[in-house]
Formats: sequence, C-alpha cells, structure tokens
Amino acid sequence: MFRTAELGQQISKQDYREIEPVLRQELLALQRELLALSSTPVMIVFAGVDGAGKGATVNLLNEWMDPRWLTNCAYRAPSEEERERPEYWRFWRDLPAKGSIGLYMSSWHSRPVLDRVNEKITVPEFDEDLDRIINFETAQAVDGALILKFWMHLSKSAQKKRLRALEKDPLLAWQVTARDWQHWRMYDQFIEAAERLIMRTNTAHAPWSIVEGSDPNYRAVMVATTIRDAMARRIDEIKAQQALREATKQSVADLPDMLTTAPIALPSVTVLNQLNLEQTLSRSDYRSQLKRYQAKLSLLHRRAFEQGTSTLVVMEGPDAAGKGGAIRRVISALDPHTYQVQPFAAPTDEERAHHYLWRFWRHLSRAGHVTIYDRSWYGRVLVERVEGFAQEIEWRRAYAEINDFEEQLIERGIVLIKIWLHISPDEQLARFKEREVIAHKQWKLTDEDWRNREKWNDYELAAHDMVQYTSTHHAPWVLVEGNDKRFARIKVLKTLCDALEKILDN
Amino acid sequence: MFRTAELGQQISKQDYREIEPVLRQELLALQRELLALSSTPVMIVFAGVDGAGKGATVNLLNEWMDPRWLTNCAYRAPSEEERERPEYWRFWRDLPAKGSIGLYMSSWHSRPVLDRVNEKITVPEFDEDLDRIINFETAQAVDGALILKFWMHLSKSAQKKRLRALEKDPLLAWQVTARDWQHWRMYDQFIEAAERLIMRTNTAHAPWSIVEGSDPNYRAVMVATTIRDAMARRIDEIKAQQALREATKQSVADLPDMLTTAPIALPSVTVLNQLNLEQTLSRSDYRSQLKRYQAKLSLLHRRAFEQGTSTLVVMEGPDAAGKGGAIRRVISALDPHTYQVQPFAAPTDEERAHHYLWRFWRHLSRAGHVTIYDRSWYGRVLVERVEGFAQEIEWRRAYAEINDFEEQLIERGIVLIKIWLHISPDEQLARFKEREVIAHKQWKLTDEDWRNREKWNDYELAAHDMVQYTSTHHAPWVLVEGNDKRFARIKVLKTLCDALEKILDN
Repeated sequence: MFRTAELGQQISKQDYREIEPVLRQELLALQRELLALSSTPVMIVFAGVDGAGKGATVNLLNEWMDPRWLTNCAYRAPSEEERERPEYWRFWRDLPAKGSIGLYMSSWHSRPVLDRVNEKITVPEFDEDLDRIINFETAQAVDGALILKFWMHLSKSAQKKRLRALEKDPLLAWQVTARDWQHWRMYDQFIEAAERLIMRTNTAHAPWSIVEGSDPNYRAVMVATTIRDAMARRIDEIKAQQALREATKQSVADLPDMLTTAPIALPSVTVLNQLNLEQTLSRSDYRSQLKRYQAKLSLLHRRAFEQGTSTLVVMEGPDAAGKGGAIRRVISALDPHTYQVQPFAAPTDEERAHHYLWRFWRHLSRAGHVTIYDRSWYGRVLVERVEGFAQEIEWRRAYAEINDFEEQLIERGIVLIKIWLHISPDEQLARFKEREVIAHKQWKLTDEDWRNREKWNDYELAAHDMVQYTSTHHAPWVLVEGNDKRFARIKVLKTLCDALEKILDN
Repeated sequence: MFRTAELGQQISKQDYREIEPVLRQELLALQRELLALSSTPVMIVFAGVDGAGKGATVNLLNEWMDPRWLTNCAYRAPSEEERERPEYWRFWRDLPAKGSIGLYMSSWHSRPVLDRVNEKITVPEFDEDLDRIINFETAQAVDGALILKFWMHLSKSAQKKRLRALEKDPLLAWQVTARDWQHWRMYDQFIEAAERLIMRTNTAHAPWSIVEGSDPNYRAVMVATTIRDAMARRIDEIKAQQALREATKQSVADLPDMLTTAPIALPSVTVLNQLNLEQTLSRSDYRSQLKRYQAKLSLLHRRAFEQGTSTLVVMEGPDAAGKGGAIRRVISALDPHTYQVQPFAAPTDEERAHHYLWRFWRHLSRAGHVTIYDRSWYGRVLVERVEGFAQEIEWRRAYAEINDFEEQLIERGIVLIKIWLHISPDEQLARFKEREVIAHKQWKLTDEDWRNREKWNDYELAAHDMVQYTSTHHAPWVLVEGNDKRFARIKVLKTLCDALEKILDN
C-alpha cells in the first residue's frame, strides 16, 4: 500500500518558490469563500509515521491560512473528565463549526492503531474500532462536513536515517528519545495496522491520501493542493445545489397546492394505540407506592453515584402527557448536587453551526450524575420530522445515528432509560381545557399546543416509527400509559428503579 | 449572628397549604418575565449547616419553577482538568446566561470555609479568599446579575437531634455517616468561619439571607419570598431604566449635533509616542537571531509542556502592525499539538448572553499549552471603548476586572505575556498602500481598517490608558517597536524566551 510513497519524490527549492505563493493565495481565497457559504465544516486529519512531517505540515497550514477559522486539535491520554464519557466525547466537543477548519493530530485513528500494534486488542476488536471511525466520519460527512485524511509516510530505512541524522546534530539530538527507537523497531507491526486502517476507512466521503514525507517541499505541495482541490470542488457543488434549489422552488411554486397537503395514513395498529390506557391506581396505593419507590430510587442513586455510574433518562410524549409531573416525582427523590433536568431548548447559534447531536454530546454530565431530558435528541425524528424542520433524508438517517450514539453511552456504562409517556387524544383535550381555566397552569398551554394537536396522526406515526427503529435490546423504549397520572408516575419511578437495580447488581 | 435563626420559627401545615400555590405561581410568572427581558442572569447560592435543608430547598425550586431556565450547579473536589486552570474556572464556565437561573450548592464559598475550619489556611489567607469571592460576585453583579445568597442555619443541638432521629429510623439511618458526626463536632469552628464569611461578603449587590432551617415549611416560604421580592424589584428597575432611556433618547435627539462629536485630546506624551520606532535589524542579523531564538523557544516550550506550565500570549496593536507575521514566527517554533492561535472573533449569542470575560474563561487551554491571542479581552478597553460598543462605566471597570482575571492566571502558574506591537501612523499608511497592490495581501485590508485609522488618536489614548492601568508587576505590557518588521519579530521571540526562562528557572 505504501510503496508508491517511497519513490523519493521531490520538489526543487526553485520550483517550490514559484508554487508556494500561488498555493497560499488560492488556499486563503477558498477558505474565505467556504466561510462565506457557512455550510461546511472542514476536518483535515493527519496521521502516519513519526518524522514524516505531520507537525510541520500543520504548522505550515497555520501559517498559510487565516487562523481565525482554523483550529489545531490534538489529543493526549484522556483526562479524568474525558474518561467519564464515551471515547468520542472529546472528538465531538472539538468539531469545527460550519465554515471553520479543524486540523487533527493523534485523533480518533490513533488509539486503535496503537492498541493493535501493542496487541492490546485482537483483529476483530480492531475492526470494531474501525467501524466506529466509519460511523463517526460518515455522520459528519452526510451532515455536510468536508473530510480529508492524510497519511504521511516514510520508509523504515528513511526513518532510521532521519533519527541517526538528528542524533548527530548537537542542537537537535534532544529530539530523539528512547521511545522513538522503540517506535522504529515496531515499524512493521505499525505499517500492518495502518494498512488495515486505511483500507477499511478509506471511504468516498472521507478519503485517505498517502503522502511521501521525506521531502518537505513535496509533502507541503501535495497536502496543500489536495486540500485546495477538495475545497474548490465542494464550493462548486454547493453553488450548483443552490442554483438547483432556486430553480426547483420556482417550478414547485407553479404546482397545484393539493400535492403538498396529502394526508398522512396512520397504520390502524400502532405501538401506541395498542396501549391499555385504562389502567389506574387508587390514591392510597399511589401514596404508599410513591413513598416506597422514591426511597428505593434514592438509595439506588446513591449507590450509582458512589460507583460513578451515570443515568440518562429521556422523557418523550405528547403535549400534556404529564412529563413535568413525572419528572418532579423523580427529582424529589434525588440529591440536587447530582442531577440535572435538561430541557430541549432552541439550539444556540453555535449549536446550529454543528451536527444536531453535537449539543447532546457537549452537555454529557460527569460520572455518577442523573440527567433527565425533557424532550431530547429524538426531536430530530419527532417534531423536526413532522414540522418539516429536518428533510426526510436527514431524519431518516437519524435513527442509525441515534442508535450509534446510544450504543456509545451504554458501552461507557451509562444507564440509558427512554420513556414514552402516552395519553389518548381525548385525555389531551380534557387536560388542555383544564389548563385554560386553572391560573397557575395557563402558562403551560400555548397556541403551538393546539396546532400540534391537529397533527396528532403525524406525531403518532413518527413516534411509532421511532419506537420501531430505536427500541434496541440495550436501549429499549418503555411505553407508559399516562391517562391516569398516578399510574404513570409510579410506572416511571419503577422503571428507573428496575433499570438501576439491573446495572448495579451486575 | 445566627441567634435570630434559632427562634423555632414555624409555618403550620394549614397556612403552608394556602401560601404555597400562590408563591409558586408568582415565582413562575416572575421567572417568565425576567426571561423575556433577557438582561439578567440570576445566581442563587445555598450554603449553611448540614441538614438545614439546602438540598431540599433546591429540589423544591426545581419543582416549582420552569426547569428549562434553571440549572443546578454543585461542585465536588476539582477534576484533573479543573485543577489545570484557576480555581474559578469552573464557576465561570457554569455562569447562567441572561434570563436563566443558576442554583449553586457547595460553590465558591465552600472551599475557603472548609479550609479555615480545618486550619489549612490562616485568617489572612482566608481573608484573601473572601476578597476573591467579593471580586467575583461584584463582577457579575455590576454586569447585571441578580445574586441572592442563603445561609441555611440549624443550632448545634437541633443538628444533634436531627442526626439522632435519622439514626433511629431504620429506613433513613443510612443517611448518617461518621462524617456527619465529625462535622457536628466541628460545629463551633464552622460557625466561626461562617460568621466571618457572611460578615465580609454580605454586599449590597450580593446579600446573604440567614434562614432558620428546622421547619421545612418556614424555610421554603422564607427562601421563596426572598427570591420573589428580589426578582420583582429587579424587573421594576429594568422597566424604569428602559422608560428613562426612551425619554432620554428623545431629549438627546433634540440637542445640536456638536455635543456628541467633541474631539479627543491626546496627551502630548503617551507611552506609545515615546517609543523609538527607528530601531532596525539587518537581514543577516535577523536570519541568525531568528534561528537562535526559535530553537531556544522550542526547547523552552518543550520543558514548559513537560512540567505542565501553560503560556498565554496576548498580541495587541494597531492594524497592520505585523501581529500576524510575528505570530507565524512564533508558532513555527512550536509543536502544533500544544499551541492554539485564538483569534478575537465576534462573540456567539451564548457568549453575548454572559459577562464579556466569560468567553475567555471558557476557552482556557489545558496544562502545558501555548495560546496566542490575536487581539484579546483587551478589546473591551480598546475597540469597544473607542467605537462605543461598551459604555464608559463598563470599560472603566474592565481594568480592575482584567487585572483580577490575570492575577488568577498567574496564581495558577500560567505564564502571561502581553505584547503591544506598535507602528507609527506613517508606517501604517505605507503598509495599507502596499496591501492594496499585492494580491495575496488584499484580503487583509478592509474598509474598517481605513475607518479605524481616522480614529488613530482615540485608539492611541485607549492604548495609553490600558498600559497605564493594566501593566502590573506580575503581568507587565511589553511594548514592541514595530516599524522594522525584523526588529519586532526578534523582540517578540526574545520576550517569550525571557518570560519562559524566568518561570522555568524558578
């Protein structure tokens, strides 16, 4: 795989002097143009052999391009806070905003390759890591990111020559440590792992370029022209799409209205309309069970906190289903030092400039905490789908992205509980009318609630699909019958207790 | 101080039932009104004796108010990442945005009190901690935050009674640990430290309320009414100010124009016009010194990284002073894994909803990194002052706020280097003209640059004042004569080397 990068490619000093200023100017111009379009984050990944010029190339790009929209992202051994979250937390945190460029070193490819070289993981485990890499890069790419990956290569003998030369220079000898020679001795294993990495993760939307690293001029020009060409192509694509959209908008406007208002056909049987909403709980049973489960939850949470086990509770359901009331019964059993209610507020402009999952990654709490999401990332396949805020292609791929996200949470030992609190349309109407008359509940009822109600079928279908596609073995949806508030609240508390108990007893 | 909180105050169950729904509704309404005005972050701090109901009260507020604009902030022993930054980093990170409410437990008051109780610090050291608390709270308050602090109190005997009662209840006995009794035995020392804390930090803009904690109803009503009254008062104030501003705007509009365009009188001698800008460096001297200082900086940075010493470099100066060129000479000596160039971009909407220093706190890098600020927090007293983006009262108080911020950086062992790169107005004009003709430099010259140039005197006066008020012993400004680019670049490199050398040799 790397033979083509051991040809001794060079660019003469004289040629370089001519090429460099032109390249710099082109890169700068493209960077500014991409920034103005503000739809594309750029992720440029550097990996490869020691001494093949990764750092030097990153430095060069820092010098050549506008540093205001360029960030260096490099990773050491994970910190305590990073270890408390899934491995990819820190990569999600650092994602560049639309229009910005991130330069990555020692990033998500690094740990799997080194683990494989040091035989800490088997080949099948390595492959799983590579799958995660593909998922991560794909999620960013389909969301609009431009991803370029450079493998900087040096042959084994060239690497040896380089180390020897450094050692001989009294000013530079300090750069060579025992670790460098140790790495050199592992060269063959390293190349083997690298080949597998590149072979498997060399996708169309996140391609690798293998660059011969021995001549600084050559590698600089290779990397810079690859970046230049990719950026130019992307800008052309965006402009073509914009033109197409303009043209389409015109022709759609000419179509009769009926085409856009086709009614949604709800399957006669959905997971929701099969629920037995008649279940109730007497006031006295409620009182005794509330006390019992709150005490139990309190103890379980204390144990979970002590062993650093976090809990995420997702609460979804129709308006007025009683999510707030159920959440209040949960939190009054918890220590306020270690829980958070995370509401689903409108995204900030920073959040809008990233993948829609970014804001959920970014706010993952520290170990041992309970976070309750009053609406959640499922907004993508519920409200955003129904209201048309997300295009069909976007919400359809969200199912897989969400499953992947949740899998990473569970792998890190986080307890994930997903609750759909359901009520019948009639019950919702009764509660809306009640809210209209009770003073301290009026604020809870908005015009939007009435509008959402008109789309009951759309929402029910979206919820049905959501349960279908995201109720996995490890992260199942719990459907809670909510027409009777007492019954629902106890079932929610019990669900939390059961989930915590199951994990803590393992 | 606490005798008034040992009177056995109570509110009967019956009275509470009447008060509670009214209070809840009032709190909710005020919360929504404050959110709509979106000018005031609310910080509510809970401290006090164990078992006096801090957690229960926070839980209650979580239940009563709209959780979407309410956050619980509680602090454990600092994490690795937190220890790498100044102590207040985590408190700055968690500041509520305008319109939001933060509920604080075990926050910035906690560590100093416990350290004093355990005699880890002397009274003068404790007083220094209290000064920092006052500075922090004052900075938030003058920026518009509403700060309320509750000290929840229980007498020594009431605390003992509570622990005994818990121990007797088989369901609750687990709540009492050896640590609780240990705390109880330290009661007197704790109260002594608390008295000093409250006495010293009980400011008009961040007042303490001492609340008797034995009766849950009484303490809930006391806390909630205090919050309600403070919020209502703040809303009235904001509305009154708005009305006043409207009225003033009208009358100012009637005044003749000349009043608003009084010319700035520049003192005949400023720190800047006294610089000897004629200093130069020959091309050959430059080449050899560049190599020498870059090699030196490279080694020093490596040492600094190994011992976890961070470096912040602030670069300020007129447009076209050569900041970018100097930065490029610095970074090419550094390992791209461990430096960042932080440009002074427009704040995001999240950043605008916070104190202007928030975004600089938020992005403080991890230990060992070099961060170069291409323009910085000094924008507050430079461009924001000159362009009128900050009111005079705002930029005037920024000097002290910035000194306090920088003092905290230096205390944590961070190397802070502040460079003003200066050129003469004539040299600036020559460079602007050069930029107009050289293709790959054209993007650097904007209409704004020409506009700023017209305000040269205003900017020079602002810079003069800035140096005067913020050039402290520990964080002095280094003024670099920039008419000769070679001379300037070497002086910048040398400044960095000297500062690092000084710290590393200590």
